[in-house]
Amino acid sequence: MSFPLLTRYADMVSFDREGGVVTLLDWRRYPHTTEFIDCTELDEVIAAAEAIARYGKSPLPYVAGYGLALVAYQRRDWPTESKRAALIQAAATLRAALPGALRTHAFLEQALHVADLALLRGEYAMYALIELIETEMAHSDAVAEACGRRAIALLHADACLLVHGYLGPALNWMLHAACIEQMLPLRLYVTESRPSLQGSRLTAHQARTIGADVTLITDNMPGLYFKQQRFTAYLGAAEHIARDGSMSASVGTYQYAVLAAHHNVPFYVLGYEGTDLSFATGADIQIGQQSPEDVLHLAGIRIAAQGIPALASPCDITPPDLITTIVTEHGSFTPDQMADQATLST
Amino acid sequence: MSFPLLTRYADMVSFDREGGVVTLLDWRRYPHTTEFIDCTELDEVIAAAEAIARYGKSPLPYVAGYGLALVAYQRRDWPTESKRAALIQAAATLRAALPGALRTHAFLEQALHVADLALLRGEYAMYALIELIETEMAHSDAVAEACGRRAIALLHADACLLVHGYLGPALNWMLHAACIEQMLPLRLYVTESRPSLQGSRLTAHQARTIGADVTLITDNMPGLYFKQQRFTAYLGAAEHIARDGSMSASVGTYQYAVLAAHHNVPFYVLGYEGTDLSFATGADIQIGQQSPEDVLHLAGIRIAAQGIPALASPCDITPPDLITTIVTEHGSFTPDQMADQATLST
Repeated sequence: MSFPLLTRYADMVSFDREGGVVTLLDWRRYPHTTEFIDCTELDEVIAAAEAIARYGKSPLPYVAGYGLALVAYQRRDWPTESKRAALIQAAATLRAALPGALRTHAFLEQALHVADLALLRGEYAMYALIELIETEMAHSDAVAEACGRRAIALLHADACLLVHGYLGPALNWMLHAACIEQMLPLRLYVTESRPSLQGSRLTAHQARTIGADVTLITDNMPGLYFKQQRFTAYLGAAEHIARDGSMSASVGTYQYAVLAAHHNVPFYVLGYEGTDLSFATGADIQIGQQSPEDVLHLAGIRIAAQGIPALASPCDITPPDLITTIVTEHGSFTPDQMADQATLST
Repeated sequence: MSFPLLTRYADMVSFDREGGVVTLLDWRRYPHTTEFIDCTELDEVIAAAEAIARYGKSPLPYVAGYGLALVAYQRRDWPTESKRAALIQAAATLRAALPGALRTHAFLEQALHVADLALLRGEYAMYALIELIETEMAHSDAVAEACGRRAIALLHADACLLVHGYLGPALNWMLHAACIEQMLPLRLYVTESRPSLQGSRLTAHQARTIGADVTLITDNMPGLYFKQQRFTAYLGAAEHIARDGSMSASVGTYQYAVLAAHHNVPFYVLGYEGTDLSFATGADIQIGQQSPEDVLHLAGIRIAAQGIPALASPCDITPPDLITTIVTEHGSFTPDQMADQATLST
């Protein structure tokens, strides 16, 4: 099977337990060059993590987790209480460096708990952390495969999808099942997804590597092509799904949801694990701001006129009434069905 | 009065009648650098014209016209019939090099006619061409000033406008009247306007030079900010207005019109001369394609993944029911009023 690099998490980040090295794909340059960054100090892990924090569905939680494993490795000969203090300190530093990364914050808490238990039992915390991270990465891979394979039920013979943002490994599984296993010809229009160009770099590359027919367009062209009825559906991925069935996703998703509804085109979402019970409504999901650097510069070149300030919001919120179907590892649901299930779970 | 360079056409292109040189601002680099291109051969004029053909409201018709003046200069000692043949040939070459530039085609026809009359009267065709071009440029400046000054009636004290694409000199006049003459504080959110970055280079620079409060955003962010009720109005410029009140404009305009309607935000258009009687409906306006080069590369650097084809549509069509007001040199109208007037004129 030929899968592109961004399909399995263990291919994107790894840890050398003998030498104490966290190795991470450099997402900023991929796929122009496939380079890995080796980190032997927590500071380097943090810098590498900050560089990928803007990418949803990146291995950020596992990079942060390996940061703790690195600290456990480096302090392996310290007294237990000092080890513990160093891990707590490292987790706090990682959290502070990644303010909007809620999944990573939650994973760090889980990792600290696992390390604590190991230390209490007099075990080597590094092993416990590695085991946790490897288990979670394998679980994430399985979620992505289940979600992606389920999503092909949404496709039909002449499918032509508008795809925006970086959809994560579930898209690879969907395209693999559709294009390779079922020989279903599939056309994708992929937006650039400014400012980080997640579409023109990551999504377009993934889809083309698997064998889909990909055309790149700018973020202002979907309206025209909706009007020309080129799209049979929109396909995006949720960052967080709230209990009311609304979701956060790569900025622009909301405007394409309005356009899809206006043109009676179904709006599909790869929802991975499904609802995040910590958010009651979309309004509870923080949008935050990312550095406007990418709006002003590209590849080190100033693209905007001098002296102009820019804003960069990494995501937006799409309300449930604009979403047709959310595909999760457990099944495909309308936002209302998701909301009903979330109510039962709480 | 401090006006930025793109306000008066005579500042963007000129002709040296002694030496036979067409001098043209290099729009591709402006405002990063302010460079002028000197053209002493028709081929050079054509290359320079092709480079600005993607910019609506550029001096393209006048550049093409000066191309004819250059030919008239170079052939000034030829027999009349040979001069005539050379001008007809030059106009044909210019038209062929600028396939979608309808205004320029019409202007070349007018220029040929004027040159022909001069030749029939035994006069120097170059003078007749220069006089025509200078008169038309002054007329265009007057249209832009009238349209721009009229547009301030649409603004109120807390105006915060979403602006997309390059709106031409009328925007400068509007901003000058608002910010300098009336001291009306005005906030603009300007989209990048990919792929040519007309927003982040031209519009943002113009507005900031005049003194407006400008924030640059990517083309996928307006939806989020419409939802957050940041905009009191959308402001764009029409490329062509059809007799039914629909219009072509910089690609993306249509999707922002759908979003403006969805969020009950007025959608205003700088309409310059008003209706182009040669188009019955929006469907008659050809959208065409521009080179996808700018989607794939920036300043010679590949920004998209390798091997991905791209599409670039320069404009889209916005139907009359999504437009609130079209401001022309003659007055401000609803699309229905424009359509009624067009019916009377035909």
